[in-house]
Amino acid sequence: MENRIYLDNAATTPLDSQVVEAMLPYLHDFFGNPSSIHMHGRKVRSAIEMSRKKVAELLGVAPAEIFFTSGGTEADNTALRCTVECCDIQQLISSPIEHHAVLHTLEDISKKHGIPLRLLQVDENGQINLDELTSLLKQHPNKSLVSLMHANNEIGNLIDLNVVGDLCYEYGAVLHSDTVQTIGHYPMQLEQLPVHMVVGAAHKFHGPKGVGFLYVKGNHKIHPFITGGAQERNMRGGTENVYGIVGLAKALEIATEEHEQQIAHVKSLKMRMITRLQEEIEGVAFHGMSGHIDQSLYTLLNVDLPKGEDNDMLLFNLDIQGVSASGGSACSSGTDIGSHVLAALNADPSRGAVRFSFSKYNTLDEIDRVVDLIKEMYTHKV
Amino acid sequence: MENRIYLDNAATTPLDSQVVEAMLPYLHDFFGNPSSIHMHGRKVRSAIEMSRKKVAELLGVAPAEIFFTSGGTEADNTALRCTVECCDIQQLISSPIEHHAVLHTLEDISKKHGIPLRLLQVDENGQINLDELTSLLKQHPNKSLVSLMHANNEIGNLIDLNVVGDLCYEYGAVLHSDTVQTIGHYPMQLEQLPVHMVVGAAHKFHGPKGVGFLYVKGNHKIHPFITGGAQERNMRGGTENVYGIVGLAKALEIATEEHEQQIAHVKSLKMRMITRLQEEIEGVAFHGMSGHIDQSLYTLLNVDLPKGEDNDMLLFNLDIQGVSASGGSACSSGTDIGSHVLAALNADPSRGAVRFSFSKYNTLDEIDRVVDLIKEMYTHKV
Repeated sequence: MENRIYLDNAATTPLDSQVVEAMLPYLHDFFGNPSSIHMHGRKVRSAIEMSRKKVAELLGVAPAEIFFTSGGTEADNTALRCTVECCDIQQLISSPIEHHAVLHTLEDISKKHGIPLRLLQVDENGQINLDELTSLLKQHPNKSLVSLMHANNEIGNLIDLNVVGDLCYEYGAVLHSDTVQTIGHYPMQLEQLPVHMVVGAAHKFHGPKGVGFLYVKGNHKIHPFITGGAQERNMRGGTENVYGIVGLAKALEIATEEHEQQIAHVKSLKMRMITRLQEEIEGVAFHGMSGHIDQSLYTLLNVDLPKGEDNDMLLFNLDIQGVSASGGSACSSGTDIGSHVLAALNADPSRGAVRFSFSKYNTLDEIDRVVDLIKEMYTHKV
Repeated sequence: MENRIYLDNAATTPLDSQVVEAMLPYLHDFFGNPSSIHMHGRKVRSAIEMSRKKVAELLGVAPAEIFFTSGGTEADNTALRCTVECCDIQQLISSPIEHHAVLHTLEDISKKHGIPLRLLQVDENGQINLDELTSLLKQHPNKSLVSLMHANNEIGNLIDLNVVGDLCYEYGAVLHSDTVQTIGHYPMQLEQLPVHMVVGAAHKFHGPKGVGFLYVKGNHKIHPFITGGAQERNMRGGTENVYGIVGLAKALEIATEEHEQQIAHVKSLKMRMITRLQEEIEGVAFHGMSGHIDQSLYTLLNVDLPKGEDNDMLLFNLDIQGVSASGGSACSSGTDIGSHVLAALNADPSRGAVRFSFSKYNTLDEIDRVVDLIKEMYTHKV
């Protein structure tokens, strides 16, 4: 994989070698069950609780508000399903461009509990309308569950969690936000945010797969989703993924320490790709808000390429040339179904769409090589 | 931890170094998202599907019948909750000595769905009565969900899955069995067993924590528990724990290759402990069936020690002396609540109870040292 260019960091990121180093002692020597009261158990229990404390500190919350899960999807399921089971919810509000972890879960809840699901309209740039949200919230004061992602994983649109959160609080709604694309990428102080629940997935910020967390604000009480033993203070049964949790905390620590330089570096990569594509490819555009450097996720660019005979083969041809990129959310690309996000934006399917997403390990040279490749494809073929 | 004696292998086991070796490439080099269609993704997708194929072959089932999860507890939750949601179930049947992953889940289902939960009586040795099971099954033909663990994690009692399964099939009941203590410890050919669903947890057989699987027999159709992306053939949303899955398959492969020698070695450890305790400690007994070498799980022995002033401190004193053992299920010991299994057997709480559980890494010398320690405690203190 050494000579390949990896520009699919919104799908998953390479592990930071310091994260692997932090995990290894728990794969080799410290193997106890954290629920055991003997020395083998106490050693790993302490690692988990130190990790929880670290994550809580980095995010400005109390350790008791952090629950480790097997990833972002389980955390989203827990937040949404358990809120509906614990609170009197009569309306679900979301948008058509949410990740399937939220959208499919809300659809399932709506069907099982007979609660209507209202999807906010999005404009051609994927932006929601706060007036529509307000008008829905007014219909069911104190009985709405709202789920709106902080940053869209395909088109990079950001919402202002302070504004949306204040609106939700005004009408007594519970607000959940899928923050897997922003946790570890932006400094976040969650206690100050008017949001009841957010989620993180370690593998989105150079940590391990199979581990994530759910933050639940202290005054929002929910029951467990996975029942069993007393782990996670009775909130999630199952022996903890100790190395995963240690890796998650280490990855978040590194990400926080490196925030400024990482943002500057990755932004410069995205800026270079925008500038050079605009110079080289006539008619290029960018989906959603992703082309607006300061109004979108700095880690991704969804390129809207001109019509071309080989557009169906675009990702395949990039792959052959050693470039890993995505046509939309990786979670649906394996199933050969097109992006539901681009569909919601009424994107022209005859044009090409490629999502490039960047990390601290990418270089300006890689960006140049990829733009050169795209230029060659369009010069020869269009 | 090097000089300590670890006899709590029913709680969790040390990783086999070959398992860690198999996992490392996926922590270092092969980091893609399995749902991505490019080379980085295909490389790990292939590792997951090869792992699934290997697990399926080792257990004598079809790859499409194996679903990877974050562990045994999630797998139990999926099996039980999704069966109730997909089938017309009017009665839940289990026993009071099930693991909390099953017991608490069934209690929750019973409450939420208003379906009665019938717990079979157990005798003073923890044995269920098949006549009682038959009589319950007769009351709701084709509408019962039965969950009975293959081997009890505290007292080692085994049930004959062929006999129980045939009974369930006769009355059209769905049978789930928590097999986390037997998968990787006994050769199992699941296709031939009359059981609809069983579960495995890698960390119980020298594999990693945070990963397990659910086997669902082809003709039993359930919906997903964790909704989201299309992973696990639409049966479990969430980016897969790639290293965990690779580690699970490797651990099961090693366990299967070593079955005969592991059973012989571990049985000899248990036999030695039984014999020496009977020689050295007057009035010693064994909880459940665990003292019957050929009628119980060969990996554990639950020792029933005479009354003694320091019995409350037994585990603590063993721990101080460098021995890690358990007073019951590790999953509840962290919460300071006594064992619900020993309570169901009406065990005398003034006597001491210690669960010792063994693995291939323990030695006869370790067993002798532990028996000597216990002898010393009881000679000095009683």
